[in-house]
Amino acid sequence: MVTLRAVTFPRGTGSKSHQGLHSTDETPDNRAMTVASGHADRPDAGSRAGDTHPDYAALFARRVAEAGPPLMRAGAGGAAGVIPLTYGFPDPGSFPVADLIEASRAVLAGNAANALQYGPIAGPVSMLNLLVAKLAGEGISVTHDNLVVTSGGSQGIDLVTHLVINPGDAMLVEAPTFIGALQTFRNAEANLLEVPIDEHGLDVVALENVLLQACATGVRPKLLYTIPTFHNPAGVTLAAERRPRVIELAREYGFLILEDDAYSELRFAGEPLPSLYSLDPEGCVIQVRTFSKILAAGLRLGYLVTPAPLLSRLLQLKVDVGTSPFGNHVAATYAADAASLTGRLDAHILELRAIYRERRDAMLGALTEYAPDGVTWTVPEGGFFTWLTLPEGMDAAKIGPAAQAAGVSFIPGVSYFAGSGGARNLRLAFSYLPPDQLVEGVRRLMSVVSGGG
Amino acid sequence: MVTLRAVTFPRGTGSKSHQGLHSTDETPDNRAMTVASGHADRPDAGSRAGDTHPDYAALFARRVAEAGPPLMRAGAGGAAGVIPLTYGFPDPGSFPVADLIEASRAVLAGNAANALQYGPIAGPVSMLNLLVAKLAGEGISVTHDNLVVTSGGSQGIDLVTHLVINPGDAMLVEAPTFIGALQTFRNAEANLLEVPIDEHGLDVVALENVLLQACATGVRPKLLYTIPTFHNPAGVTLAAERRPRVIELAREYGFLILEDDAYSELRFAGEPLPSLYSLDPEGCVIQVRTFSKILAAGLRLGYLVTPAPLLSRLLQLKVDVGTSPFGNHVAATYAADAASLTGRLDAHILELRAIYRERRDAMLGALTEYAPDGVTWTVPEGGFFTWLTLPEGMDAAKIGPAAQAAGVSFIPGVSYFAGSGGARNLRLAFSYLPPDQLVEGVRRLMSVVSGGG
Repeated sequence: MVTLRAVTFPRGTGSKSHQGLHSTDETPDNRAMTVASGHADRPDAGSRAGDTHPDYAALFARRVAEAGPPLMRAGAGGAAGVIPLTYGFPDPGSFPVADLIEASRAVLAGNAANALQYGPIAGPVSMLNLLVAKLAGEGISVTHDNLVVTSGGSQGIDLVTHLVINPGDAMLVEAPTFIGALQTFRNAEANLLEVPIDEHGLDVVALENVLLQACATGVRPKLLYTIPTFHNPAGVTLAAERRPRVIELAREYGFLILEDDAYSELRFAGEPLPSLYSLDPEGCVIQVRTFSKILAAGLRLGYLVTPAPLLSRLLQLKVDVGTSPFGNHVAATYAADAASLTGRLDAHILELRAIYRERRDAMLGALTEYAPDGVTWTVPEGGFFTWLTLPEGMDAAKIGPAAQAAGVSFIPGVSYFAGSGGARNLRLAFSYLPPDQLVEGVRRLMSVVSGGG
Repeated sequence: MVTLRAVTFPRGTGSKSHQGLHSTDETPDNRAMTVASGHADRPDAGSRAGDTHPDYAALFARRVAEAGPPLMRAGAGGAAGVIPLTYGFPDPGSFPVADLIEASRAVLAGNAANALQYGPIAGPVSMLNLLVAKLAGEGISVTHDNLVVTSGGSQGIDLVTHLVINPGDAMLVEAPTFIGALQTFRNAEANLLEVPIDEHGLDVVALENVLLQACATGVRPKLLYTIPTFHNPAGVTLAAERRPRVIELAREYGFLILEDDAYSELRFAGEPLPSLYSLDPEGCVIQVRTFSKILAAGLRLGYLVTPAPLLSRLLQLKVDVGTSPFGNHVAATYAADAASLTGRLDAHILELRAIYRERRDAMLGALTEYAPDGVTWTVPEGGFFTWLTLPEGMDAAKIGPAAQAAGVSFIPGVSYFAGSGGARNLRLAFSYLPPDQLVEGVRRLMSVVSGGG
């Protein structure tokens, strides 16, 4: 096993409004955000109107009044010879290609009239049945009335945000937290209050302090967004004894909890802990989950586990007329084997745990070998990430160019904060690359750190 | 050819705020919105928190403060023996199943590392290339900087709405208009100003009057949502001579146009007309389009054609981390033949035109045969719908139960208005059923109408 050297976290508690940072995670393509050149030349053929662009800026809603900077991934890992420790991407070698070919064929040959047609907004019955069975296997009892299939977990976060947040409403986020969720909350013009985390996850004492401060100034947070298990980006897990306390505070202060549970199936060390949802079913928790990490991100399938009374409201907000019936039917057909609705998927998840454990071990082993004194990191028991803290005085964003020149890329910690924390931090993903590349990437990065950037 | 008896339209112009109606179109499943029973009983196993539900209503954002009524489709066509003239669904018999099986196999066998992984937020390059080629075939010159792939056209409408609408901002909608778009605008808390349409589409004189009235009261509409070609629900098409006028008014009054062009490929009579986008490329028009009507709704693939300066802002709002790479790659692989990137899709569209022309003719022929005096309808030159006006004094919603009892269902006109119009109207879809069922459905409906409901 890998040893934990130490863990330090930025400790700046308090309430901070959202800033102009615009970045989301999880897309490799270099062109995704390198567009919007803003050139004023117009193709003139066929134009009968004025010769100039309209004044677009005068029409923009507040949420897009400021242009976001290009996504960091726009330059991440694109260059040849650069080892990307950036991406929170599943191992492409793990995709069950042959089984998905057969599932696609079976769905189209046997069920095209449903798979290629509009489907139920909440998701096809075959997928809802799969989810009921899957959750039952985790000890969570739900019916179709507790489920909404979404376009990845990200759409689930968006739906819950719009369920409760009016512009200016306060909500609680961890510091650090998932970049894509921050973007979603900013689009909703939420007032983001940060709560620090430590090596045992969300700091529940700090949470109560933030709530007390908010109340004292007449602010009432409506939602807590938390990633209790195998945190993105921090890799930590909320301690068992803190979990009921989060529920208690939600009940006491009257907010909902959006529990992002993207990684819990990928536990490769330690004992499973009860999800927040399971501690208060049909209560104050909505859980957002995804098939992106356990099957294939390219299917864009996720789901919400919600108290039943919220379902119709969530469906009012899901105006995309349902997530791809084709993708849903393929996933549900893939997941089942002769024995159960989840048999093949369950077996696949066991394989994934072994893959990601090996990768974590490789990365942490390389850190142990190559990191200079003063560098610390978290030891995840599952998921995709470890979170580094650089020696005092170093700035992770500033060493980015030197790292790139040395042939390795990462995402600096500042991107994961609603406020201004994280300068000494950076996230490393061990999910995407095979062990030898992880080791080499860490070696390169640590040589840069050892050189002081 | 079918003859046009007459066309009448509700003429109530003016500005109306949005109401509490919550309905969206395009989903057949009966359970989609029949949930949210609101029962207060909680599963108690595992609960450590309070015994009651939190006060969800106190947390709801304004946009969901009022529950919508169950979607009308929740009861539409579910009963055995009822012919559904409700659905705006493509012909399930038209789906190119064998070609999609082969495309799925080819994508997974040859390109799984991309198709099953996270992809670019704006869409995979293969799909963007297809769209550039497809639009070039229509005389529209675009680059990747003008394109965003979306989860059906519906997500495109949502993105553009959030691009410009702050809560309370005014925008223009046709009366009647697409139910799903109305739901989206209500979710964004837009102030909806209705503009009537007639047999030649949007009434541009009325449009200017609404704009003048708005200006006089200090209201500035930021967006016009219009369906110029083969209107949903009205089946009409904006006349050629009105099209430049819409652009002129947008330029003069400083609003953007969201042109919903879901059906233009499915023209089976008359001459093609220039799209609004083609009249002002890189100008004041964003076009929303879809593969739902020309390939398969179940893939949930649509796209925006946008002035390039708006692209980065639209991508900031697209927080779903991209529409399914798997679905995109399958569609792009399907669409190409040996000769071009769009060859197979182009040939398929020609087949679809013949299918829908036959269905339109069957429905309009049956109307001519069975409709009593005083019933009028529109004669669409493409698309999926005709729009009926019942005799003076009749209410389409009120004859719904009798029609159901007679074995036919439809959507009453009131559902398509932001305000209170449409009582005498109803929409009939000819897209989903074969001709003999359309004829029988119209016969049943007209027997009810002849009996006065």
